[in-house]
Amino acid sequence: MPDFRFAVAVMPKPGILDPQGRAVEQNLGHLEVEGVRDVRVGRRVELTVQATAEEEARATAGRLAEELLSNPLIEAWSLERLA
Amino acid sequence: MPDFRFAVAVMPKPGILDPQGRAVEQNLGHLEVEGVRDVRVGRRVELTVQATAEEEARATAGRLAEELLSNPLIEAWSLERLA
Repeated sequence: MPDFRFAVAVMPKPGILDPQGRAVEQNLGHLEVEGVRDVRVGRRVELTVQATAEEEARATAGRLAEELLSNPLIEAWSLERLA
Repeated sequence: MPDFRFAVAVMPKPGILDPQGRAVEQNLGHLEVEGVRDVRVGRRVELTVQATAEEEARATAGRLAEELLSNPLIEAWSLERLA
């Protein structure tokens, strides 16, 4: 069976408080960086799925994203197929 | 000045211990998921940079990735331009 590699992006939903994003923004001044805003901090999980077809692998990765890697109340996830 | 939005991916370098990835792998059995391996857990940071041109915005985002968002000893980062 072939391997399929995905990246799962898990980000705080719009309107959900993002303290890590605020912390990054507050540190920009120390670096003397200007013009940066709307910082959102989430997670990226890369994984390999062995399956008969990409559709099946994508379904498995999506199930993991929904049930194990994210909190659907406050986070949104998306899948990206990696080379 | 126009806005440019980027996603910074920060992942543990190959060979660096990734306890979060191991924790995910150990939980796969509870979900009765098979065929998933090589799980790596990192961060995804989305941010908007206001700059005169994309090249300048990309340089700013790269500086943040290198100096604020990652630990270059154990993590590798990459930039993706978002729509």
